[in-house]
Amino acid sequence: MKIIVDAFGGDNAPLEVIKGAAMAVEQLGVEIILTGNENKIKAAAAENNISLNGISIIHTESVIDIHEEPTSIIKERSDCSMALGLKALADGKGDAFVSAGSTGALVVGATFIAKRLKGIKRAALAPILPTDKGYMMLVDAGANVDCRPEMLVQFAIMGSCYMERVLKVNSPKVELLNVGAEDTKGRDIEIQAYKMLQNAPVNFAGNLEARDMPNGDCQVVVSDGFTGNVALKLYEGMGSYFSHTLKDMLMSSFSGKLAALLIMKKVKAFKKKMDYSEIGGAVLMGISRPVIKAHGSSDANAFYNAIRQAKNCVDGDVIGEITRSLDMIKSESKTGSEVK
Amino acid sequence: MKIIVDAFGGDNAPLEVIKGAAMAVEQLGVEIILTGNENKIKAAAAENNISLNGISIIHTESVIDIHEEPTSIIKERSDCSMALGLKALADGKGDAFVSAGSTGALVVGATFIAKRLKGIKRAALAPILPTDKGYMMLVDAGANVDCRPEMLVQFAIMGSCYMERVLKVNSPKVELLNVGAEDTKGRDIEIQAYKMLQNAPVNFAGNLEARDMPNGDCQVVVSDGFTGNVALKLYEGMGSYFSHTLKDMLMSSFSGKLAALLIMKKVKAFKKKMDYSEIGGAVLMGISRPVIKAHGSSDANAFYNAIRQAKNCVDGDVIGEITRSLDMIKSESKTGSEVK
Repeated sequence: MKIIVDAFGGDNAPLEVIKGAAMAVEQLGVEIILTGNENKIKAAAAENNISLNGISIIHTESVIDIHEEPTSIIKERSDCSMALGLKALADGKGDAFVSAGSTGALVVGATFIAKRLKGIKRAALAPILPTDKGYMMLVDAGANVDCRPEMLVQFAIMGSCYMERVLKVNSPKVELLNVGAEDTKGRDIEIQAYKMLQNAPVNFAGNLEARDMPNGDCQVVVSDGFTGNVALKLYEGMGSYFSHTLKDMLMSSFSGKLAALLIMKKVKAFKKKMDYSEIGGAVLMGISRPVIKAHGSSDANAFYNAIRQAKNCVDGDVIGEITRSLDMIKSESKTGSEVK
Repeated sequence: MKIIVDAFGGDNAPLEVIKGAAMAVEQLGVEIILTGNENKIKAAAAENNISLNGISIIHTESVIDIHEEPTSIIKERSDCSMALGLKALADGKGDAFVSAGSTGALVVGATFIAKRLKGIKRAALAPILPTDKGYMMLVDAGANVDCRPEMLVQFAIMGSCYMERVLKVNSPKVELLNVGAEDTKGRDIEIQAYKMLQNAPVNFAGNLEARDMPNGDCQVVVSDGFTGNVALKLYEGMGSYFSHTLKDMLMSSFSGKLAALLIMKKVKAFKKKMDYSEIGGAVLMGISRPVIKAHGSSDANAFYNAIRQAKNCVDGDVIGEITRSLDMIKSESKTGSEVK
């Protein structure tokens, strides 16, 4: 299997990307294609004694910055490391793509270069969040600030396929992020989506109030991209607020440090669970091949885990499963209209 | 000063309401008017040795349930304890109103019985949330799932007046909850509201990404009611998830319990900060007199604090300050059009 990785995406590029890629070659048995400045990649690898065995390079000197207009990836930056990676993906040179670069550019680039899956209205950003009982996927967490109800149904299907195929959750519970439990709650989009989700090929369990997100009773949370982005960032923000509070409780005095020794194992387990670098990245769902958005501040371990996640998407045939689910709806609605 | 309190709102009515009211009479020197079944109130007070000195009662046997349609407060439930409290407020029998009953019914009832302030387009629910540096107000946290940009500007003004007059924050920083920092981020409503907030009589500091909410750098967070409700509930949900995790770290083993003893003071301080019952309730902003929505599960202490908060709104003349700010915009826009 070949995973294409943008060597110049994220705050720690290219060194941490190269390290993560080398770890993936060694531990996962995959081949890696890095995109970006070949001289710089080779120099960084040589300086840090990183083997480039199993790693090939598609050279370009151009990089898209996170402050650039996302659409520039299909215009003046169409030769950047992210664009070339997506092009290689579209051309079948690799099985999946990983980048820690600009989210906006990745959404635009993946949509127009690697292309959406047939029948999918919009790509959606889907991070995996830790919960009390495991993990949940949030779709959409920011690719589309304005959504229509039928898009939310597709988000539900894509999230279900991922959780079932990659995280091996049997019949994952899907819920709609809303302001109350009743089916009359929310704006027009939630009221319409609720009705449509009841007939969708997913295990729809109704509305989810945000206070229940950390419980982990639900494995796929469906939302428009604006609300989802706010929820994602607040989830992350509260997580780091608590980590910081806990650190202050344990590290700012002698008795605190003593207490820390006593509960070290549990504190470490909690921190590991909240650590995004262990989870991988957010999946950009709805593209013809697996695309993973790694966190901007990813280190080698985070890149390794994002590559592992990309491999799991390929191994689990998430894209095939989404296609089959979409076909199922299509043929059902056909039968429905024939009956009429 | 007279504070009207719905004796039959919330999970712990009427006993905890009566206890909180008696505490308020004793400690704050206010008079209380309770609305609800007089016999039941007197029986509960007698059974629990609570003095009803300084407390009068407006009798009704009707109560509005949280599962009832909110609009029933102005129809078949127009004689319920919440409605009679709002009517007494409108008639000037008291200076402020507190209820832990149905939020929806309170929004409808306050709007149509106690009436909106002149010029205010919509009432907004504004809870006070704890942050790393103190407290912030979130407006709107759920009264209006659909909003227009000019409503968000009014939310900003009302939140500013409260933080300045009640929590004594000098020139409180106002930010717009959004998916990015740039003024081009968000949906049409955020883009329009951003422009309007720049010219509003508030200390507008730009967009706020949800991950920065717990930091406490901003004291008034402005949002449409749908997004605000999701943010509020996630804030609360993450808070209790963390409290529960901390409890598990400290209470599930002998070494944990030992650690708990060592950091007890800091844990208690943190729990007190996160405890809504210490803060009071959410303010229903935009009504002609102060209205406080206490948490549904309020105990006596929470009711006492909600009454204290109502008193502070009256003492700080929040309503007067809002009226003056609205007049300022009106006269400015008049001058503006005259100049044209």
